[in-house]
Amino acid sequence: MKLAKTYAFLKKDLSVIEDALEETVYANQPVLHEASVQLLKAGGKRLRPIFVLLASKFGEYNLSYIKNVASSLELIHMASLVHDDVIDNSNMRRGKPTVKAKWDNQVAMLTGDYIFAKALQQFTEIQQPRAHQILSDTMIELTMGEIEQIKDKFNIEQNFRTYLRRIKRKTALLISSSCQLGAIVANTDKKTETALYRYGYYMGMSYQIIDDILDFTASEKELGKPAGSDLLQGNITLPVLFAIEDPALHKELSTLFRNPAHIKGETLLPIIAKISSSDAIKRARKVSDMYLQKAYDSLQVLPNNQAKEALENIANYIGNRQI
Amino acid sequence: MKLAKTYAFLKKDLSVIEDALEETVYANQPVLHEASVQLLKAGGKRLRPIFVLLASKFGEYNLSYIKNVASSLELIHMASLVHDDVIDNSNMRRGKPTVKAKWDNQVAMLTGDYIFAKALQQFTEIQQPRAHQILSDTMIELTMGEIEQIKDKFNIEQNFRTYLRRIKRKTALLISSSCQLGAIVANTDKKTETALYRYGYYMGMSYQIIDDILDFTASEKELGKPAGSDLLQGNITLPVLFAIEDPALHKELSTLFRNPAHIKGETLLPIIAKISSSDAIKRARKVSDMYLQKAYDSLQVLPNNQAKEALENIANYIGNRQI
Repeated sequence: MKLAKTYAFLKKDLSVIEDALEETVYANQPVLHEASVQLLKAGGKRLRPIFVLLASKFGEYNLSYIKNVASSLELIHMASLVHDDVIDNSNMRRGKPTVKAKWDNQVAMLTGDYIFAKALQQFTEIQQPRAHQILSDTMIELTMGEIEQIKDKFNIEQNFRTYLRRIKRKTALLISSSCQLGAIVANTDKKTETALYRYGYYMGMSYQIIDDILDFTASEKELGKPAGSDLLQGNITLPVLFAIEDPALHKELSTLFRNPAHIKGETLLPIIAKISSSDAIKRARKVSDMYLQKAYDSLQVLPNNQAKEALENIANYIGNRQI
Repeated sequence: MKLAKTYAFLKKDLSVIEDALEETVYANQPVLHEASVQLLKAGGKRLRPIFVLLASKFGEYNLSYIKNVASSLELIHMASLVHDDVIDNSNMRRGKPTVKAKWDNQVAMLTGDYIFAKALQQFTEIQQPRAHQILSDTMIELTMGEIEQIKDKFNIEQNFRTYLRRIKRKTALLISSSCQLGAIVANTDKKTETALYRYGYYMGMSYQIIDDILDFTASEKELGKPAGSDLLQGNITLPVLFAIEDPALHKELSTLFRNPAHIKGETLLPIIAKISSSDAIKRARKVSDMYLQKAYDSLQVLPNNQAKEALENIANYIGNRQI
């Protein structure tokens, strides 16, 4: 099933968001403008706006108000990706050169700052004080997740808890906030808001785990960047944590990681192949499935409607996506 | 006259802000915490909080409310300094190693992101929607100023307008916003708010011009970083623009700047000496004085009180400061 089909009824509204995004990133400064537009056009699934809109469907759905939250969250996501590429020294994303590759780290840093500021400007339209608190809390956690990612690089002694806390901060909270903020700006009742928040959180966890699996199992063409990029950058993800329960692999990786500067793509190829073909992938997928199930379960208190069905379908898609 | 004496009556309130800052930057993550605390302890004049408090004195002065704006603006200033050091590749600030020097560019970028997010969290306490709009607009302009600084580096063909627009964005608007937001959160009338905004804008322009002059005239010990750092980094400031009206110096600098990568501190020493001893310094000071006069004039519509006197004294101090 195509993802887009599950929320086809939002097509018109999503194009309103897309227009808002284009209008927002417009910069009266050539470099910032070009870099921002490149980021926007690079695409992405616009998952966060979709979650905002779907969550709002459980309350008073007022697109001209809600769109400010939807575009704001997508901009925050975009800004964090640009800064992320600086941290990970990534040259490709979604098959296109990153801002830091096309310009440099400094331009990438400022483009991120600019898009963050634009996101906030958009968000000033929102009246509910709680929404502002949730947004800033989320941004703080997001930054903490990124710094943990740096700190934990090449450290294979980290445990599952460290990994889960990191992806919670780095990915899941922005998705749960998208759902929660969608509920808040539509004035849903508290029970609905909590259910949507939970759904988003579990979805986000599952989403990131699948992402981490695909980095091993998908091809370079599918990923839009070299396969095994995470490990090359020293990011220890769930499949790695499972795989290095094997003492031989643990030793092999720990020897290699003693000199991170010397690691090249080719050196890691045999290890990546071992991880890809080990049961680590299956075990990681099981953890993802557990989160997915929880995401489904969270929805059960909600009334049956088109939005609920779409949220279920998205969970289904995310859980089985090949890319 | 000591600067601190002019606002001695705020001493208690400023220590409340200082406590709020310390509390705010607390991070449940060792690297972020250490980097943020280092930034905070590196000091600074806390000019922005001082402007917020003084502006609030013209309305309903409620410290427990106002302090959120005061600390928020200082945090935004701090965050922009960390990112600025990445852009300028600066290793020293106020006589201490910068975050990017002590850690690296990536940690500096994330520390800035974290402090930005903390500033926003603090600002969510503020109820007035206009205050939020002003804050986000200021942050956008701030970023534009920084990117212009990158773009205009080593470009000696830029004109005075380019320079003035850049320092407006980079420095003056955050100071004018400090004054304006102080007025807004104290519910002053519109006339008072406009006067304070103007004062801040002109003060900010003068402040940055003096800063740019001091980079040539002050010693390394006074600056807490090598003298002539701006030119070494390719930042063309007002004294340079005046000095290169001399065709010989224009030619000399343009030849050097053709290979920015080859420029070393020693190569620039004779040029820095020429600029320091030329009338460019005097002429730049005249422009600063013009802005200072406008800052004074803006205050004249305000009632005479302790706060007004302090604002006048600060203008006087800034205009004559040797560091």
